[in-house]
Amino acid sequence: MSLTNEQLSFLKKIVDSSRVWIGEEIGEDYSHDELGGVSGYPDILIKVLSTEEIAAIMKYAYEQEIPVVVRGSGTGLVGAAVAIKGGIMLETTMMNHILELDEENLTVTVEPGVLLMELAKYAEDHQFLYPPDPGEKSATIGGNVSTNAGGMRAVKYGVTRDYVRGMTVVLPNGTIEHLGGKIVKNSSGYSLKDLLIGSEGTLAIITELILKLVPLPEKSVSLLIPYAKMEDAIGAVPEIIRLKSSPTAIEFMEREVICFAEEFLGKKFPDTKNPAYLLLTFDGNSEAQVEREYDKVAGYCLEHGALDVFLVDTPERKDAVWSARGAFLEAIKASTTEMDECDVVVPRNRIAEFIRYTHELAMKYDIRIPSFGHAGDGNLHIYICRDKLDEQVWKEKLEKVFEEMYEKAAEVGGAVSGEHGIGFAKKEYLREQIGEEQIRIMRGIKQVFDPKGLLNPGKVISGE
Amino acid sequence: MSLTNEQLSFLKKIVDSSRVWIGEEIGEDYSHDELGGVSGYPDILIKVLSTEEIAAIMKYAYEQEIPVVVRGSGTGLVGAAVAIKGGIMLETTMMNHILELDEENLTVTVEPGVLLMELAKYAEDHQFLYPPDPGEKSATIGGNVSTNAGGMRAVKYGVTRDYVRGMTVVLPNGTIEHLGGKIVKNSSGYSLKDLLIGSEGTLAIITELILKLVPLPEKSVSLLIPYAKMEDAIGAVPEIIRLKSSPTAIEFMEREVICFAEEFLGKKFPDTKNPAYLLLTFDGNSEAQVEREYDKVAGYCLEHGALDVFLVDTPERKDAVWSARGAFLEAIKASTTEMDECDVVVPRNRIAEFIRYTHELAMKYDIRIPSFGHAGDGNLHIYICRDKLDEQVWKEKLEKVFEEMYEKAAEVGGAVSGEHGIGFAKKEYLREQIGEEQIRIMRGIKQVFDPKGLLNPGKVISGE
Repeated sequence: MSLTNEQLSFLKKIVDSSRVWIGEEIGEDYSHDELGGVSGYPDILIKVLSTEEIAAIMKYAYEQEIPVVVRGSGTGLVGAAVAIKGGIMLETTMMNHILELDEENLTVTVEPGVLLMELAKYAEDHQFLYPPDPGEKSATIGGNVSTNAGGMRAVKYGVTRDYVRGMTVVLPNGTIEHLGGKIVKNSSGYSLKDLLIGSEGTLAIITELILKLVPLPEKSVSLLIPYAKMEDAIGAVPEIIRLKSSPTAIEFMEREVICFAEEFLGKKFPDTKNPAYLLLTFDGNSEAQVEREYDKVAGYCLEHGALDVFLVDTPERKDAVWSARGAFLEAIKASTTEMDECDVVVPRNRIAEFIRYTHELAMKYDIRIPSFGHAGDGNLHIYICRDKLDEQVWKEKLEKVFEEMYEKAAEVGGAVSGEHGIGFAKKEYLREQIGEEQIRIMRGIKQVFDPKGLLNPGKVISGE
Repeated sequence: MSLTNEQLSFLKKIVDSSRVWIGEEIGEDYSHDELGGVSGYPDILIKVLSTEEIAAIMKYAYEQEIPVVVRGSGTGLVGAAVAIKGGIMLETTMMNHILELDEENLTVTVEPGVLLMELAKYAEDHQFLYPPDPGEKSATIGGNVSTNAGGMRAVKYGVTRDYVRGMTVVLPNGTIEHLGGKIVKNSSGYSLKDLLIGSEGTLAIITELILKLVPLPEKSVSLLIPYAKMEDAIGAVPEIIRLKSSPTAIEFMEREVICFAEEFLGKKFPDTKNPAYLLLTFDGNSEAQVEREYDKVAGYCLEHGALDVFLVDTPERKDAVWSARGAFLEAIKASTTEMDECDVVVPRNRIAEFIRYTHELAMKYDIRIPSFGHAGDGNLHIYICRDKLDEQVWKEKLEKVFEEMYEKAAEVGGAVSGEHGIGFAKKEYLREQIGEEQIRIMRGIKQVFDPKGLLNPGKVISGE
């Protein structure tokens, strides 16, 4: 696809030219996402400002049959926001306004380009918590909703889906629709809102979001618990859950990955002497209650293989630990020449088995496969590192490793992606896992929303 | 539609005849639901036993183009489970087995015919809580999922949707599919699971469910708070929310409705001297924490118009209060000759305004409109009572009252149904509220799942 001069001039007329870039004016960043495995340039890049503007552009694109891709801050990992078919890229980062805090309905209304870290801070400043907490804080909320991002706190608080009360969207034909609202319950026809959550910009364009907040817990404490073996660490997780404690987060991390993060950030982690760690958080409204909860868990862990328990309760320690955790992806990326990722989610009592399997694959294919992730909710972030492999060998090994990994995920009752989505990169694994009938239904749904196939073409369930 | 003898014999061959009823053998109960406003008999009633059996029946029905309606225990209020086009009725109450409790993944796997009260008790017996708590405890879980039922605890815990991790379904063509699983996160293609939740049996047949549980809170206390006026009671709710307390439930009730329940149950309510009441519940894991929460709220209420605060903390008082609350619908029904209901959900800070409006409508049309409901989540249960009106006048008044009520709901940002669904009875109000484009999309989705229009025909978004 490449736009005609007439089409480009028309678009420049309906959008202020200071927010439009064409052809070679478009920066290299806009040709890929964070991971960089998928690439392609749009013909025209527009930094959009409003629902109405998006509707006008989409209406024109629909008439003219021009592909449209929406991009937030480009932190995706599966190529979902890459304009692989050219056309128009709508970039939402100027739609970054928090429009309303409604303390009576516990909602915040935002534009899709608000960054997660901005929303998190805004909520905290008003004594609220926006619970979803994906590692990548500079992602936009629109992107988080489009991938149903989960993050650290899913163990206790659930995922992004659980916090989307309402949305304004522009359909592929340019119509503006409102779904849900400031309402807590809804049983009024099929939930189009829930269908759009996680649909990676292939069904409609999200232009406004009504999100649920919860009161900010008054107390939050983390425990860093070292183990002699990763399997001991992860093996403890189902048992911690059995104790009927309610940790906010349970993360697992390997020494190697922590050391990468220390180097990457130039910042010390409280302890790196041990091969494996669990990082647990507990929150609540009274010190005594939180203490009682973590005491129970700490006691259990010490009796069952933990080497120590470090209390992470000062601002300095919290910062050291959580900033390291936040930097894992970047740190692993900096440790190698190229990498690709696997974001499977498995039942939490199968994580240990799955991680062991990745270690076996690393041996079998003689390739480095560091990982970290959300032990509490079964969502693993596994990185296959190219290091010094030559192109051909890397491609072959990567394909085989992926194949075996996704097969194993299916075998233990898992899914292809916990929170990063399918985008372009994971399409064949999705197809293999869910089978032809579900793919047929998803394609049918795509066809209903987008009969001309213009919105984010070639992604998720597209056959191309 | 009426089945040929050949079709009936075929079905009797694939299902044990002790579980099959044909024509006049079918009891009157199966011709309507709890409210009784919509009626129609199936040609054949089958009490199904398994996913495979349902798949075999559905496959045959698909080939032969026979309509199929699924029914749980028939407690619906909008005619969703009524066979208005005849055909096959599949009744799920013999599929009432709790298949697995998984304490490591915090899930319970059930057949769809398990009753809510059975599941609730089973969970509690194992020190877990299944949080969704709709008033009608003898509804099946399949029905709860099909309407995305909410219930009392939605303020703190959310609705049924938030507790469905996975499902096995039979598609209209007879294919068996698995959606989701024992996984906490999922970003693997469009969420068909979430599309089926609340789809009232029009897209697929749910044959197994994996539900999420939470640890049972150790302490739970309710407060019954009388007010001189309903508006004062409901007006307090947004302010209670502003206090950043987290009540599990906030119900409102009028004296008149409480008195109906007392009479209906033959059981005393702790207090009936006052015109209006709030009933709040708080739960948590320590007595001190729960006490601190309700103290704050009780103090606020007493300073802002509450006439008293009754602590509901003994088993006797809890039973008296909650059994009355559970009997409201039946009690109002017993107080009149016929009634119809409105289950709107509005933002919680617009409830007072909405209830006032229903009182105005009652005056304007000289008709009795008692109500009760979930003040904490904005979901109202409003009953328009026929009493002694003659048929013609009743129909006319009912239509006008409904029209104005649903218009008002839209005006304040609400939706047609909070948890009872659309079924047959509320189709035109849904259409008016969400508009042609969303109806077009929903019909398109229906067409993708069910190209022959056989599953629960004439419901939700059907044009017929």
